[in-house]
Amino acid sequence: MKIKVVESVLKANDAVARENRKRLDAAGVLAINLMSAPGSGKTLLLEKTIPALAPRRCAVLVGDLQTTRDAERLGSVATQVTQINTGTGCHLTATQVAEGLDGLELEGMDYLFVENVGNMVCPAAFDLGEHRRVALLSVPEGDDKVAKYPTLFQAADAIVLTKVDLLGVLDYERQRVYEDLSRINTRAPLLELSSKTGQGLEGWLTWVQQQRQRLCPSRSPG
Amino acid sequence: MKIKVVESVLKANDAVARENRKRLDAAGVLAINLMSAPGSGKTLLLEKTIPALAPRRCAVLVGDLQTTRDAERLGSVATQVTQINTGTGCHLTATQVAEGLDGLELEGMDYLFVENVGNMVCPAAFDLGEHRRVALLSVPEGDDKVAKYPTLFQAADAIVLTKVDLLGVLDYERQRVYEDLSRINTRAPLLELSSKTGQGLEGWLTWVQQQRQRLCPSRSPG
Repeated sequence: MKIKVVESVLKANDAVARENRKRLDAAGVLAINLMSAPGSGKTLLLEKTIPALAPRRCAVLVGDLQTTRDAERLGSVATQVTQINTGTGCHLTATQVAEGLDGLELEGMDYLFVENVGNMVCPAAFDLGEHRRVALLSVPEGDDKVAKYPTLFQAADAIVLTKVDLLGVLDYERQRVYEDLSRINTRAPLLELSSKTGQGLEGWLTWVQQQRQRLCPSRSPG
Repeated sequence: MKIKVVESVLKANDAVARENRKRLDAAGVLAINLMSAPGSGKTLLLEKTIPALAPRRCAVLVGDLQTTRDAERLGSVATQVTQINTGTGCHLTATQVAEGLDGLELEGMDYLFVENVGNMVCPAAFDLGEHRRVALLSVPEGDDKVAKYPTLFQAADAIVLTKVDLLGVLDYERQRVYEDLSRINTRAPLLELSSKTGQGLEGWLTWVQQQRQRLCPSRSPG
């Protein structure tokens, strides 16, 4: 009974997600869903990414239980930002994203970044209509997270290891991450970077730009 | 309809939680539920705490989606450890804890530590039958987490700021945490510590021991 309810919730979500994707496709906007634990550095990565993608224009939908802090931080770099407060909700839903899209002017946009609620479990189950899913994990979280939270990393099109400037400061065996990923996702690139020092940002930006070129070839390069 | 289902799930959970608490009370075992984002240092804190509480005896129930890594780490320090794998579940439930209790010998135990699934949202909604709830947050997660994930910190009997050895390395305004807490929870102590350097561990151990003295006065000091 409980499982049936969950299934029907997911089914309804996926139908809305398909509509979101159609709207984004029609507008030529590439949507990337960023998912991670709280404090892995999603917002800071966007603060560095969006200016570097100029003159391409970026919109952001940012999910948090409460506060508009992330939207305030991103307001100075992105063309349009909408904060979605989920209350007690542990992930964004396709319906919340659809409502967010209603409030954005998609025409003329090139990228939509969706910053999900900080959570390594629930967001992975909900298609939002994005084109690409990115899972972040940070060095201070420890090198065992891929093995312990596999659903997030299985579902990812790219995996970003953040805060690599702390590799010398903290005990962290990078090799464990590579080994654990080799068992569950060999398709997604693992991109290592530090938003703070700039190390590795170029590889990330190249990946982002390539995704847009593939999906929206008529509107690229870029 | 969806809300009703959630309510009845929570109601059923709470009934099992009450039974768990009765079993723990009858055995004179103080149960502490540790909740935080992934990688905040729950397991390492227990690795330091349990030996320091000797000769008091500790059992641990540890929740993760997959792997028995945390149970393996804790097996060398705790008298009894059981790993609960939740599959895709983003929190422990009272029923999972009840099954965990079935497998433990409670007689002669003094403390039960429950290490919840790493998640700052869902665990806060589920009473497991614990006596005390501890919310951890780590310095590398950033100083905005209390404001952004208030439900976890509202529900906590103690709040532990971990990895304070990184305060000099990372940008972190401790004052923001105090200000955010002053709005949602003025009752719980905020304990700052580093499991790595040992700084602040004594304050944490004192708090843990005091909780047991209050709840199980006939069996203490300890």
